[in-house]
Amino acid sequence: MVTQKATNIRWHQGAIARDDRERLNSHRGFTIWFTGLSGSGKSTLAVALEEALYERGLRTYILDGDNIRHGLNKDLGFSPEDRTENIRRIGEVANLFSDGGIINMTAFISPYRHDRQTARELSMDGSFIEVFVDCPVEVCEQRDPKGAYKKAREGIIKEFTGISAPYESPENPEIHLHTDQETVEACVRRILDYLTRHNFIPA
Amino acid sequence: MVTQKATNIRWHQGAIARDDRERLNSHRGFTIWFTGLSGSGKSTLAVALEEALYERGLRTYILDGDNIRHGLNKDLGFSPEDRTENIRRIGEVANLFSDGGIINMTAFISPYRHDRQTARELSMDGSFIEVFVDCPVEVCEQRDPKGAYKKAREGIIKEFTGISAPYESPENPEIHLHTDQETVEACVRRILDYLTRHNFIPA
Repeated sequence: MVTQKATNIRWHQGAIARDDRERLNSHRGFTIWFTGLSGSGKSTLAVALEEALYERGLRTYILDGDNIRHGLNKDLGFSPEDRTENIRRIGEVANLFSDGGIINMTAFISPYRHDRQTARELSMDGSFIEVFVDCPVEVCEQRDPKGAYKKAREGIIKEFTGISAPYESPENPEIHLHTDQETVEACVRRILDYLTRHNFIPA
Repeated sequence: MVTQKATNIRWHQGAIARDDRERLNSHRGFTIWFTGLSGSGKSTLAVALEEALYERGLRTYILDGDNIRHGLNKDLGFSPEDRTENIRRIGEVANLFSDGGIINMTAFISPYRHDRQTARELSMDGSFIEVFVDCPVEVCEQRDPKGAYKKAREGIIKEFTGISAPYESPENPEIHLHTDQETVEACVRRILDYLTRHNFIPA
């Protein structure tokens, strides 16, 4: 008898779905996709935004170079093909976190419009928020927090976005920030305003 | 002045860490790695376990063929190399969910001991629970919920684990289930007992 029960093992009626997880969290799962040049402030904004969301008791996660480039995508370089595959995988993982009911933020240059569009199309309609972290390349190069622009100018780093590789600006981002003119706090406030106005998070 | 503030844009002091997310969720983030033959009951158990955890108010997510093989790993087939890369990526994503403070379950055959070991090593010490969903291949073939064994016998599906490709049984799984002898409910109860006894979830 026991064997018979176990043989009839495939029942999926009890499956917990995305809206169950979102109900438990009291907010939707969605992606905030930061895009912009190296040094424009993507990671800084993601960290500051995550802190503000966490203080509201919301469930968050940041996908960034630290946990993706050295892990999931450690087999990828910086050629156009590898950049595309890099962003494809990040888009897929972001979508899994959204499906998991988690507010996920991605902080990658993601220079190609087509790749960002691919990531957007993976998300459920409306659960992808593109944030253009706009900052003139001269200002980014002046900041040069990791010394990467210096190395790019010296030719030590090849295919560096903004110097020796293209960056395609978003045409219709949900949010357009100017980090050479706005403070981190002001940028975070604008994103939070957007999220509450569009019912992504409770007011 | 505004420009200067923004120039000094890299501060990460406020970063929310794994233990912050775990505190918010009132439980640890960890991986329950189901491994076993096709038809052994991995997905069924993951779904039933998720329901039980959800009812306790815990944050969960299942990684399975439905959301991985058709998405993140859609570029991979079933050759030994592709199986290894498949499991590597799943291990990386599972680890991201653990880092996100989420109880994540993976339901993949994951036939190679070495690959499961790689996934285990990605996790923080002790946050990887291997569950051997043990069931004789004859019983799995009799169940054949997807008609896959039939196709494997007919040679339509090549490199099918248990028929034409190897399965390496876990040597020291944290939990060893016999789904030809135990009901789904009994298996779930044993996993929940393990999780509470080892303080992965509140009693």
